[in-house]
Formats: sequence, C-alpha cells, structure tokens
Amino acid sequence: MLQPFTRVLDLGTGDIAPENRLVRRRLSDMRGAYAEDCDGAQVVYEVFNIDVPETNSELQTCTTRLYNGKVGDEYFMTKGHFHEVRDRSEVYLTTSGYGRLVMATEDGRYAIEEMRPGSMNYIPGGWSHRSVNVADEPLVFFAAYIGDSGHDYGSIEERGFPVLVVEGPSGPEVVPNPRYQSS
Amino acid sequence: MLQPFTRVLDLGTGDIAPENRLVRRRLSDMRGAYAEDCDGAQVVYEVFNIDVPETNSELQTCTTRLYNGKVGDEYFMTKGHFHEVRDRSEVYLTTSGYGRLVMATEDGRYAIEEMRPGSMNYIPGGWSHRSVNVADEPLVFFAAYIGDSGHDYGSIEERGFPVLVVEGPSGPEVVPNPRYQSS
Repeated sequence: MLQPFTRVLDLGTGDIAPENRLVRRRLSDMRGAYAEDCDGAQVVYEVFNIDVPETNSELQTCTTRLYNGKVGDEYFMTKGHFHEVRDRSEVYLTTSGYGRLVMATEDGRYAIEEMRPGSMNYIPGGWSHRSVNVADEPLVFFAAYIGDSGHDYGSIEERGFPVLVVEGPSGPEVVPNPRYQSS
Repeated sequence: MLQPFTRVLDLGTGDIAPENRLVRRRLSDMRGAYAEDCDGAQVVYEVFNIDVPETNSELQTCTTRLYNGKVGDEYFMTKGHFHEVRDRSEVYLTTSGYGRLVMATEDGRYAIEEMRPGSMNYIPGGWSHRSVNVADEPLVFFAAYIGDSGHDYGSIEERGFPVLVVEGPSGPEVVPNPRYQSS
C-alpha cells in the first residue's frame, strides 16, 4: 500500500516542489512538428511530473508550462501523443493562460477545446492530444491520467494532426494540416 | 468512443458550469459524525460533479466546497469514505482555502496532509479520506479518481476515523477519536 503524500504546485507557473522535471523541449526537439523549419535552444515547454507506479489503480499527475511564441504563423505547442493503452482517458485543468487543446482520433476526426483559467478538458480514450498556447503569456495546466496509460509519440510524429492552430488576422484559426497523413 | 468536452470551474468557489451538483450536505445530514449532536439546515459542504461512465478507463472529477464552521471544537468536515474498489487512488488539488486531509487504513493507521492553494494530495488506494476546513473561508478543491472507484461511506459511519482535527488554543490539533471502533 502506498503512503499518502503532498506536492505543492505553483498554479501560476506550474512549478512543483520538490521539483521533478520530466521533459524540457527546445525548438531543436520540435523539428518536423511545424511547417517551417525550427532549431535552437529556446525552450518551448516543460513538464513537471509526480511519480507513482504505472498501474491502472494509480493516477499519474503533472503540470505543463507551455511558453508563448511562434514558428512562422504556428503557435508554440506540445508534441502531442496518444496513450499507449488507447482507451485510457485524461483530464486537464488550466490554471494560467489561454490555449487550444487539439485532439484527434486515429481515423482522422478532430476536436478543438478552449483552455483558460478554470477550464477542465476531458480527453477521452482514443483521442490524441496536443496543447497550443494562443496568448502572450505561458499556458499552465495540471493533468491527471490513469497510471498505466503510457505515451505513444510515434504515431503523431509520423502522421501529424489533421488540423493546425495558426495566428490569423483576427486571432487563432484552425486550418487543415497540409502535411497530415491520413490512415 | 466518448466525445471530448470542457467544463469551466470557478477555482475560487468550486462552481462548475454547467452546474451539476451531486451532494449538498447540511448539519442534519452529519448527525453522528461529530462528538456533539448537530442538526439544522446549515450547509456544511457541496460537491459538483462531472459525469462520465464508471469504468477503469475513465476519470471521475468533481469540486468540493467545504464551508467554514464548527460543531463544538470540531471543524466542518466531509463525511469521508473508502473507495468500494479499495485499491483505486485519488488526487486532490486545492484551489482556495486551507484544510487538513485526514486519511486512514482499515487496520487503523492514519495520515494527515495539509491542504492549501496549490497543494496536490495523493490518496493511495486503501486509504479512506475526509477533508477538514481549518480556516475562516470556504475550502475548495478539485478531485480526480479512477472511474470505477465507487464510494463506501458505511465503513466510516460505523467506525469513524482514528483521529479528529479540532480547534486548539493555538490552531488545529490532531487528537485521538474516543469513538473510533478499531477492527
């Protein structure tokens, strides 16, 4: 039986004490994710993780801090992934900033939901998910998902998402992804 | 496959739009939970729920608004429960207010964790859990747990928790519960 514990999250920045950074992705790690080439050491996002066993009785939790910025007209975004165990669901609670949550099924359906302080997005099993920062400040959200979900980044790296979120003349726009590989 | 959706939480009050109140417990619903008798229509806490199927691929989520107040020297608290499926874990993210999370195992071990804005409490499977408001404002927290966890209130109603959180001369104190029925 696990022992109860507490971590303290900064709801404004996403920092977790004691710190346990899982991921720090720089522009150089995001090559191929954007229509335009990108490179360099600029940090796009960081994920802070709370470690628990990977079983379907536990809950994985983390915070994500997605910085503001663009590559061409595409906003900074996370890589996005499916769960390895496809039917496992996930929830996002945004605590700071503004964004879009892009989700897609393997057969090419997509859904876009808004992220803003207090929004609770439900990502059902079978939907890949990527967050996009559409504002001029970091987007910070808390995520919880079932312990044995796992991550499948490969499918997205190969096929992309059916749509992109880009900056248009009057704000964020959802446009077809010309490089999407339908199955 | 479920369709993605979003609910908007007020992180200060716990209200969820669109509203879906699961529970509103008044002092008259809490008889037997405190050492002193209690009765009346005063609301002790409310739980706002987001409905999803009760399977172990989904995540149940809710907010709790636990008002401030006391019965004798015991702070307002939730009834507390085990999960029906004992090994299912749960997480709490406090968004407003200050409290204590009281947890106990069936064999009488207990644990106390602090709740304050940004605290993420991990409640492992096998631990019953009750929250206690130790401040002069509502305690508001977001909870996520595995979809098929279920609720067992009966064990707590029969046996109580091994400890109580009461107001002492210099703040909250954890004291043995004289009415606890050890197994």
